Amino acid sequence: MTQLLKARQGIITQEMRQVAKEEGCDVETLRQRLAEGKVALPCNHRRRAKKVCGIGLGLKTKVNANIGTSVDYPSEGEELKKLKAAEGAGADAVMDLSTGGNLREVRHRIMEEAGITVGSVPIYEAAVKANQRGRSLKAMTARDMLDAVRQHCQDGVDFITVHCGATYGVLKLLKESPRVCGVVSRGGVFLVEWMSAHKKENPLYEQFDEVLSIAREYDVTLSLGDAMRPGALADAFDRVQVYELNVLAELCQRAWEKGVQVIVEGPGHVPMHQIAAQVKLQKELCKGAPFYVLGPLVTDVAPGYDHITSAIGGAIAASAGADFLCYVTPTEHLALPTVQDVWDGVMAARIAAHAADISKGIPSAWQWDKEMSMKRRKRDWEGQFATCIDENRARSVRASRPSTDNVCSMCGEYCAFKVVDTEGGDGKNPDIKAPNQGAGRRV
Amino acid sequence: MTQLLKARQGIITQEMRQVAKEEGCDVETLRQRLAEGKVALPCNHRRRAKKVCGIGLGLKTKVNANIGTSVDYPSEGEELKKLKAAEGAGADAVMDLSTGGNLREVRHRIMEEAGITVGSVPIYEAAVKANQRGRSLKAMTARDMLDAVRQHCQDGVDFITVHCGATYGVLKLLKESPRVCGVVSRGGVFLVEWMSAHKKENPLYEQFDEVLSIAREYDVTLSLGDAMRPGALADAFDRVQVYELNVLAELCQRAWEKGVQVIVEGPGHVPMHQIAAQVKLQKELCKGAPFYVLGPLVTDVAPGYDHITSAIGGAIAASAGADFLCYVTPTEHLALPTVQDVWDGVMAARIAAHAADISKGIPSAWQWDKEMSMKRRKRDWEGQFATCIDENRARSVRASRPSTDNVCSMCGEYCAFKVVDTEGGDGKNPDIKAPNQGAGRRV
Repeated sequence: MTQLLKARQGIITQEMRQVAKEEGCDVETLRQRLAEGKVALPCNHRRRAKKVCGIGLGLKTKVNANIGTSVDYPSEGEELKKLKAAEGAGADAVMDLSTGGNLREVRHRIMEEAGITVGSVPIYEAAVKANQRGRSLKAMTARDMLDAVRQHCQDGVDFITVHCGATYGVLKLLKESPRVCGVVSRGGVFLVEWMSAHKKENPLYEQFDEVLSIAREYDVTLSLGDAMRPGALADAFDRVQVYELNVLAELCQRAWEKGVQVIVEGPGHVPMHQIAAQVKLQKELCKGAPFYVLGPLVTDVAPGYDHITSAIGGAIAASAGADFLCYVTPTEHLALPTVQDVWDGVMAARIAAHAADISKGIPSAWQWDKEMSMKRRKRDWEGQFATCIDENRARSVRASRPSTDNVCSMCGEYCAFKVVDTEGGDGKNPDIKAPNQGAGRRV
Repeated sequence: MTQLLKARQGIITQEMRQVAKEEGCDVETLRQRLAEGKVALPCNHRRRAKKVCGIGLGLKTKVNANIGTSVDYPSEGEELKKLKAAEGAGADAVMDLSTGGNLREVRHRIMEEAGITVGSVPIYEAAVKANQRGRSLKAMTARDMLDAVRQHCQDGVDFITVHCGATYGVLKLLKESPRVCGVVSRGGVFLVEWMSAHKKENPLYEQFDEVLSIAREYDVTLSLGDAMRPGALADAFDRVQVYELNVLAELCQRAWEKGVQVIVEGPGHVPMHQIAAQVKLQKELCKGAPFYVLGPLVTDVAPGYDHITSAIGGAIAASAGADFLCYVTPTEHLALPTVQDVWDGVMAARIAAHAADISKGIPSAWQWDKEMSMKRRKRDWEGQFATCIDENRARSVRASRPSTDNVCSMCGEYCAFKVVDTEGGDGKNPDIKAPNQGAGRRV
């Protein structure tokens, strides 16, 4: 039985307990939201991650890091280092998006080493195999696609991206569309090319019941891919994107009917003023299914800084209700990330997630900031370091340009906190122990 | 006559023309908004920057970089390098916040070398001098403060921060307040300590008419400092902050009556869900005066990454109507920034400003992104580099992990754009020349 089916039957599982404890939330509320499909706990029967990741309403916003080999850089060893970097930086999940080298071998090693939730995209393997057989991507068969789905589930992956919503109807609309960047999802483009060549419906849509039955067998969470996600600001919120989202809403319903956990993937490149509406639309159409966004990037012009463009978009999306942020690294659009890029990408996404959690009213998020500020006020440097989102980074910045006298080298002896302490005026202020009841909106 | 007085008399100045041309906006509309105080063009009679920076309604969001020596790092040479880095990265203004070494000498050198708008904070010099005379900050006299204001204006600074709103009334409220971080503005804390010791009103408030008459003489734009800006999320939007903002609204009115240009400074540390309301409040109370925000930082817990925390806050603030973003560097709260930190800080703030400009509906901002995406779709790498916000950064990332075959090493031969081009399916799509009418909200 899946976590969803157990939740519906009123069963509290060990995984639900673990997540409730980690989040500091009520386990019965969690169970109820799981039963309604508003929360997902991806955890394949065949693989128990040390740490289960709860995604959805009332929970902290989670962060995923994409790793994986490419044809140009097929080193398994480097990807395992990225896994460790992602975990070290505090990612809640990693997705293995490998397309270079022995894909199954890489996936196995990542699952062996990972203490966190692992996702994958089976169609990459189907397409790469078809291509490696010396033919083109279009030589991929419907059976190849379904076999890849089964293989990944059997191998123990906790959640898989399946582009089941990229239907023939979507394709028709796409052909008429004046998009600037067309399709930028790799899985999406494989299916679009396949449908165009074979003049057939997307097998992952046509045989969605089989996908569901496999997912249910292993309790793999389906991450419904948005093959039509905008890859340029100019393409955001167009008819193609919204048509596919409508199909994904249908698929959520069908997944829940079969007791399969589901989350919905979202954009992509989106101008700031559209982000909240995009989230609201997904939440309404998909009846509260967890929303997993890639970025979104709020501008197209900043390659080299796309961890920042997506931290802006991710914070706004999460604060509007998105539940799961896929990080974007500084090398997006330019190169496969290095280990350091993975670290920086996870940190930027975690900052976005945390800032949004404050605005979502997650009490522990607010408390974290307050603790930091109390230590800052006291110039308690060790206390501040221990409270930082990245202790080592903070220590090394401070150590690189030290100051004297328990201040930092920016203000030196004119540090506002030091001035208050040494000059000792009446307005020196703040009883820092006094209660402060400010808080974000309640969940 | 100040730019404001000329605008009121219907005179179109050379500076107005330059800004209108740079912004691609109508010069008569600009003149009108300047006359209403909704736009400021800081440009001291005594110093003509090569490039005038227009700040306010309907204009692109501008970025300021704080530079300047500290007691621990008083190197004039390094600060001049930071000036060049800030200009190279595209800052619209720099503020000299020096507190170490020979302050006047540093200021002069910065103004000589800068091709952009320069601001400063005269009270720093007054306080540092009082301190250097071997006594305490409190030994500063009212005359010292006014003399510093006059000196900076005579020296040719385009805009100055004056904490005229930190009144005795504000101090009284502050003393009763349960703030976590009290006062974090350096200028603010100098005045708070001074008022507490002398039991007297803030001379910059009491003698505001003299401040105005000096500012008017040189057409120096007053940047009304928010001495009470929240330095912790828990302190945001408290009575102290709002009381001071109300005083600043009064001072805007008085400045306009005397024909003095004015902008208003804002926070600081603010949770995401409060930012838009903070901007709306300032715009209403201060009758549309340009709003200049420091960040805001959307979380307290990320020292080492505060360029990112403030890019999130700055983008939201600007998209809600803030006009001028003061950058924050990665070393904020930890150390005086290096030249590289200045570069990174300006880039992060520019990304925030640009993302907001798209959402504000600035047509050139939208066009920039569309051009980039059209080049991306064509895999026109040279075209992309030339369109990037940071061409060198993008080039070096790509060069560090190159790929073959005109793709990037992330997706390699499975690049969505390449798949479409080589597999050539019907859905290969997108007439990229087709018009796309999507756009941000109109100004």
